[in-house]
Amino acid sequence: MKASESVLAAMRQTNEVFDAEVVRKGNINELDRVYTANARILPPGAPMVEGRDQIKSFWQQAIAGLDVKNATLATEAADAVGDGVVEIGRADLTLGNGQSVTAKYVVCWRQEDGHWKWHVDIWNFNQ
Amino acid sequence: MKASESVLAAMRQTNEVFDAEVVRKGNINELDRVYTANARILPPGAPMVEGRDQIKSFWQQAIAGLDVKNATLATEAADAVGDGVVEIGRADLTLGNGQSVTAKYVVCWRQEDGHWKWHVDIWNFNQ
Repeated sequence: MKASESVLAAMRQTNEVFDAEVVRKGNINELDRVYTANARILPPGAPMVEGRDQIKSFWQQAIAGLDVKNATLATEAADAVGDGVVEIGRADLTLGNGQSVTAKYVVCWRQEDGHWKWHVDIWNFNQ
Repeated sequence: MKASESVLAAMRQTNEVFDAEVVRKGNINELDRVYTANARILPPGAPMVEGRDQIKSFWQQAIAGLDVKNATLATEAADAVGDGVVEIGRADLTLGNGQSVTAKYVVCWRQEDGHWKWHVDIWNFNQ
C-alpha cells in the first residue's frame, strides 16, 4: 500500500531539514529531527553506524570531506508497511568543485515523538 | 519488534537458496524462490533493477562477471514491520581468485504464496 499524501508531506519536510539545515547550513544537531535516536546508517565505503550521536559524527565528517553543498532528495516509491514506511529514493548531491553525484537509497521510516524520521538508511552510487 | 524465530528460520531457508542454488550451482531460475515477482534491487555501480526477470539477468551477469563462488548471508537485525520484515545483514562473498569481499545490505521481506522473499534489496561495500 502506498504511503498517504499526509505522510508523504511529512517525509518531504524531514528530507528538507536534511538538505536545508544539515547540508546547506551545517547545523548537524538538526539531525535530531531527521534520524530516530537508535537509527542505523549503512554508508558505502564505511562500516554500519549505530545511534544518532554516532550518525552526527559521520555526517559532519562526510559533508566536510566531500564538500557537499546541497542534497536534493526525491522519493521514487514509498510503501506503508505496518507503522512504518519503506522509501526508495534518489539523492542528487552538488559538491564544492561543481561536480554532481547521484546516489540511490532505501530509508525505513518510523515515527518518533509524532515526527517521521529515518530509522534505517542505506545508499550507494550508480557509478 | 523483532521477527519471530519461525520467520527467521524461513528467512534463513530463502537465504540458503540464494547461496546454495543460485550462486554455487548457477541455477538462476531458483531466484523465483528468493525474490517477489515485482521486487526491486539497488546494486552499487548500476541503476535500480525492477522485476524478477530483470533481476535474474542482473545476477546472471554479476555472478559470472565477479566469478562469485559462494555468498554467505548473515542476519544482523530483523524487525517485524506490519506484514513484512526489515533485515540488516552481512554478505561474505568468495571470488574465484580466492579473494573475499564483504557487503552489508538491507532487505525488506514480504510473503509471496506463503514464502518469505526479498522485496527490496540494496547493498554496498565497506571498502
